[in-house]
Amino acid sequence: MDIAKRRGIIYPSFEIYGGVSGFYDYGPVGIRIKQNIERIIRDYFILKENCFEIDSPVLNPEAIWVASGHVENFADKLTQCMKCGEPYRADHLVEEKTKKQADHLGIRELNELIEELGIKCPRCGGKLGEVYDYNLMFHTFIGPGMKKESAYLRPETAQTTYISFRRLWEIGRKKLPLGVFQIGKSFRNEISPRQGMIRLREFYQAEIQFFVDPEKKESEKFDDVREIEVEIITKDDEKFRISLNDAVEDEVIKTQMIAYFLGRSFQLFERMGINPKRLRFRQHKDDERAFYSSDTWDIEFISNNFGRIELVGISDRTDYDLRAHMELSGQDMNINYNGKKFIPHVIEIAYGIDRPFYCVIESCYTSEKDRKYFRFPEDVAPYSAAVFPLVNKDGLDKKALEVFNFITDNGIYAVYDKSGSIGRRYARADEIGIPKCITIDYETMENDTVTIRDRDTRRQIRVKMNEICKAL
Amino acid sequence: MDIAKRRGIIYPSFEIYGGVSGFYDYGPVGIRIKQNIERIIRDYFILKENCFEIDSPVLNPEAIWVASGHVENFADKLTQCMKCGEPYRADHLVEEKTKKQADHLGIRELNELIEELGIKCPRCGGKLGEVYDYNLMFHTFIGPGMKKESAYLRPETAQTTYISFRRLWEIGRKKLPLGVFQIGKSFRNEISPRQGMIRLREFYQAEIQFFVDPEKKESEKFDDVREIEVEIITKDDEKFRISLNDAVEDEVIKTQMIAYFLGRSFQLFERMGINPKRLRFRQHKDDERAFYSSDTWDIEFISNNFGRIELVGISDRTDYDLRAHMELSGQDMNINYNGKKFIPHVIEIAYGIDRPFYCVIESCYTSEKDRKYFRFPEDVAPYSAAVFPLVNKDGLDKKALEVFNFITDNGIYAVYDKSGSIGRRYARADEIGIPKCITIDYETMENDTVTIRDRDTRRQIRVKMNEICKAL
Repeated sequence: MDIAKRRGIIYPSFEIYGGVSGFYDYGPVGIRIKQNIERIIRDYFILKENCFEIDSPVLNPEAIWVASGHVENFADKLTQCMKCGEPYRADHLVEEKTKKQADHLGIRELNELIEELGIKCPRCGGKLGEVYDYNLMFHTFIGPGMKKESAYLRPETAQTTYISFRRLWEIGRKKLPLGVFQIGKSFRNEISPRQGMIRLREFYQAEIQFFVDPEKKESEKFDDVREIEVEIITKDDEKFRISLNDAVEDEVIKTQMIAYFLGRSFQLFERMGINPKRLRFRQHKDDERAFYSSDTWDIEFISNNFGRIELVGISDRTDYDLRAHMELSGQDMNINYNGKKFIPHVIEIAYGIDRPFYCVIESCYTSEKDRKYFRFPEDVAPYSAAVFPLVNKDGLDKKALEVFNFITDNGIYAVYDKSGSIGRRYARADEIGIPKCITIDYETMENDTVTIRDRDTRRQIRVKMNEICKAL
Repeated sequence: MDIAKRRGIIYPSFEIYGGVSGFYDYGPVGIRIKQNIERIIRDYFILKENCFEIDSPVLNPEAIWVASGHVENFADKLTQCMKCGEPYRADHLVEEKTKKQADHLGIRELNELIEELGIKCPRCGGKLGEVYDYNLMFHTFIGPGMKKESAYLRPETAQTTYISFRRLWEIGRKKLPLGVFQIGKSFRNEISPRQGMIRLREFYQAEIQFFVDPEKKESEKFDDVREIEVEIITKDDEKFRISLNDAVEDEVIKTQMIAYFLGRSFQLFERMGINPKRLRFRQHKDDERAFYSSDTWDIEFISNNFGRIELVGISDRTDYDLRAHMELSGQDMNINYNGKKFIPHVIEIAYGIDRPFYCVIESCYTSEKDRKYFRFPEDVAPYSAAVFPLVNKDGLDKKALEVFNFITDNGIYAVYDKSGSIGRRYARADEIGIPKCITIDYETMENDTVTIRDRDTRRQIRVKMNEICKAL
């Protein structure tokens, strides 16, 4: 976090006004890494899976979230200290006291347990108020005065895709599977987020909805991921290593399409630079799974700082959402396809962006005797290269600027740095994980070659100036 | 709009729930065009002007917008019909009646004029209620219960950049000018938006803040835009054509840096495919300019459908914003630079994204005798190519899929289309402005060549398969 703040990777938002928990800014270096992570996901799903991308508003009229069930059910059980006002999740307080799971308990049971167990405010010892359902959506109104309409900031992108299903069905010329994805912001008004950027109130998601024939939840390309071997935890807490092939054959993962995208996601995370040894596949338990879902699997990262971090959730949402919107809006969501009439089912792949971002940072952080730096893959690094003049005289600085302009003109993101010793400049470039440093020295002036130094090995090679782009 | 909706460029949001004015979705084709427009702006400012990019939350604590003046001043004068509830901007009603400008009038004056002129609800003839200040920011609360904090959705990105100035100053190693930009969503709760995607309640902006020495508002690269000749309207309504060179020399545009970025923006719009003949540079009038600004210029597009559309506003915001945040937060915004101590001034370049998007669509729309299509520049077109098998037999379809996979593997966005006649497929590709169509025919099977057909000229050339990427 020291490097992250100092070098502009991420930092808490609104610092000058004391900050608000659950909000982070991406700085100039971090945003490049974030965009690279998004690009890896986007290019995969658009270019390899022929998905559509769309972009919907984050501010939505109430009807959408009534239909989805969020207005009624998307709530935590809240209690507040009557003395200091501190808010708590009632189930968390009970869990801390009893060491038993409490997130399935109702309001009455929680009130009774708080009373019976004598639970007080952990902060000031004050008496706790009545438990109530606290909806996690941010609420506002669209429009003025008497014509204003109740509205919410979306807590997920998925619903804003579902409501356009009919239009997308027409645009896609009526073929299944139809894959649609959105990368964008979602919002959850968490009670008291205290986990840095792992639990944000405003966060990025990349959610892909595959509309499928309910009888065809397979993938033609399952062979590509069949051999991947992973660590699995089933809903019954069984833990073992298994290949995706065997997981499907033994019906550990019942839906081939879910297994396929678990495998693909595993590959994407590895490509981002997330340590694959710290990833595991976890099936949601029966009482944890959302009510609409018939099966859900997460890929989790085991973090040194935050424990389990959910990076993606892959879920068979059946026809629950389309049916709900059909009932509330009156628009028919049935399609005629292959001689059948039905409402498509949805296989959802829901990535966070901020969490993979964090896991890339944690995985790539490298501490050696004489330096601390990020070992980002070239695809993810904030800049492809740094350009230095060895000294700021004898025309070397002018030449270095020429090189810098040449490579940026070729669309390569680079930094130019002319201050301090070369060692100091290497260190600065390493610190933010720039893979290559290009130095213009006296030999450059003689024979038009530069040195390119590798971040990880610290080895240098000399290349001709007109071959720099190729070498990078 | 027929093509836009049918082919997935843009469409009104929340259609199945009756829609809400001021919200649009980008469809699968539109989002590609939008991303290309953003890339043109981003690449220019990062690669050519060495700007930082950052990304801040859209949901902000109240303090930011108190400091900026928006809580107090960012309001329209609202009146509502007492009978049907329809809301109106009071100044607009008065303007319609008197044909005189009314947006400078206060609440009392507007109330009096509505009374005197006998203005009734244009919709139902009902009596109008008292005029009041209606703040255009969406309001909500962060956090639960007693600890909740008043918050707003940002109406511009600029302030979320200013509050991080000190951190950015350190990250940028204390050099001026410091250019920082954000591309992201902003929100304005317009009273009753009725202009399609020209006036949205949720919209995209790309706003660049250049922090500068108050005595150095020049650009080193002004020579690059000096010769550009443009149509100008001054704040005194004088209208003429002039080169940027003369505009600065004659002090029509007082600040060279503003003239420079007007020129650059003009070039960027032209690159996007916006018709440059319909662009003009307009200086804000004294009573129209924001209170903090010492000079503001817009580039406007003259639209067939919507009249004047503001595409970018370039403004000298002086030290107004940094000073305001310094006063409310207590954080010192003074810097020591070149032996002086001062608060930097800000030159702001504020682009909309949705409006340039619309102007690209309007400019590129081409209606010929036998076809309607979009003549997008290659940089902006949603896909670089469409790939067709001439017929779906004799291995041509398999070969065509290979070609499609080959070019998408090379990161080129393309579509594959095998249904209907070749003529019908050309028409579909033209309609969404795909510049090139690649057809795999019987000759392909003999000598590994394909035809590439140009959208605008409809001419075809034959190229070797391994040279397709180069040819595109």
